[in-house]
Amino acid sequence: MNCLEEKIIKDGIVKEGNVLKVDSFINHQMDVKLFRDMGKEWKRRFADKGINKILTIEASGIGIAAVVALEFDVPVVFAKKAKSINLEGEMYTAEVESFTHKNKNQVIVSKKFLNEGDRVLIIDDFLANGCALQGLIQIVNQSGASVEGIGIAIEKGFQPGGQIIRNLGYQLESLAIVDGMNHEDGSVQMIRRAETPEDYFATFDCFEDLSMLTK
Amino acid sequence: MNCLEEKIIKDGIVKEGNVLKVDSFINHQMDVKLFRDMGKEWKRRFADKGINKILTIEASGIGIAAVVALEFDVPVVFAKKAKSINLEGEMYTAEVESFTHKNKNQVIVSKKFLNEGDRVLIIDDFLANGCALQGLIQIVNQSGASVEGIGIAIEKGFQPGGQIIRNLGYQLESLAIVDGMNHEDGSVQMIRRAETPEDYFATFDCFEDLSMLTK
Repeated sequence: MNCLEEKIIKDGIVKEGNVLKVDSFINHQMDVKLFRDMGKEWKRRFADKGINKILTIEASGIGIAAVVALEFDVPVVFAKKAKSINLEGEMYTAEVESFTHKNKNQVIVSKKFLNEGDRVLIIDDFLANGCALQGLIQIVNQSGASVEGIGIAIEKGFQPGGQIIRNLGYQLESLAIVDGMNHEDGSVQMIRRAETPEDYFATFDCFEDLSMLTK
Repeated sequence: MNCLEEKIIKDGIVKEGNVLKVDSFINHQMDVKLFRDMGKEWKRRFADKGINKILTIEASGIGIAAVVALEFDVPVVFAKKAKSINLEGEMYTAEVESFTHKNKNQVIVSKKFLNEGDRVLIIDDFLANGCALQGLIQIVNQSGASVEGIGIAIEKGFQPGGQIIRNLGYQLESLAIVDGMNHEDGSVQMIRRAETPEDYFATFDCFEDLSMLTK
């Protein structure tokens, strides 16, 4: 079990309707040392990809991506979710429709910051149905850059987004895949992905306090 | 001149209406190595403050705050700008009204993540009229925590936000204070703050390529 999975089991809160709250360490309060450890692991998994740019989407992807970018020694671009007055000139835009919520959102990136030849790693905190991620991939494709990898903190394995992305041939590396959860006892079940056991079972070094890994 | 000032003069773009665009390194594409250098400088300036938490606001403050938090070895909390369905339970809220735009915004932080006794450093990318910052200070005060310092990347010295905050007695450390700009020749003038020359004139180490500092 890696340190993100440990953290989810220890501090994640399960709510009715398959809602996993990780706001104490990912998307409201941020455990930046955990993000750094996640970055080291993604660096290992995407070592041969020649990544020169990280792409994420506001808001909760930004903190993870910024810390991970230090490990890769590359800049981050964060996509915006709605047309902003501070963005001008030519922009890549992707309209994505949520299958669940039926609403449409625009994902926007300035053309200045994604170019042909860029080798992009997409980073985000959650993957469920994959709507935001589909928009980000569409934008990278528009730019002529290539999606060299996708790093997700927490994938909801019981929703289809991850499988679709893998079916399309992308290297998707989710550091925790949640198979199911039970709001009555608060338990969270993790998937072990059989197809990449050597990666997935790797316990990446994390936390200076190794006692956390021994329970 | 410090490395942020250098970067503003080199890559900032001046638009009509006193608009300074820094989207190539701060608020759309992010130069995370620059953020790390800024973090080292804030660490020096707030060394004796016993900071145990960093507070920022979505979206463009998050990347800076996350990288800076690694330097301070503390967690980050980012305030949200509107009520989110993922936030529940008791929340601190501050309603702030923009003097310029006349619109009202809510700044929201879960009560779980700010507590009495917390020694908070507020970090944000821009300070102009200081509306968002006022909301963040209000929230820290509501929580019983203390604002031990405020670190701003770019302060617009010709707008009143910074002076108000200093008048209130807060230690506000802006790493670049822009005095004026000219959209016709693209020039940006920096203020040298007479009141803290030893800090403000300090050229903090930044960029491995020191040649950038010699021009």
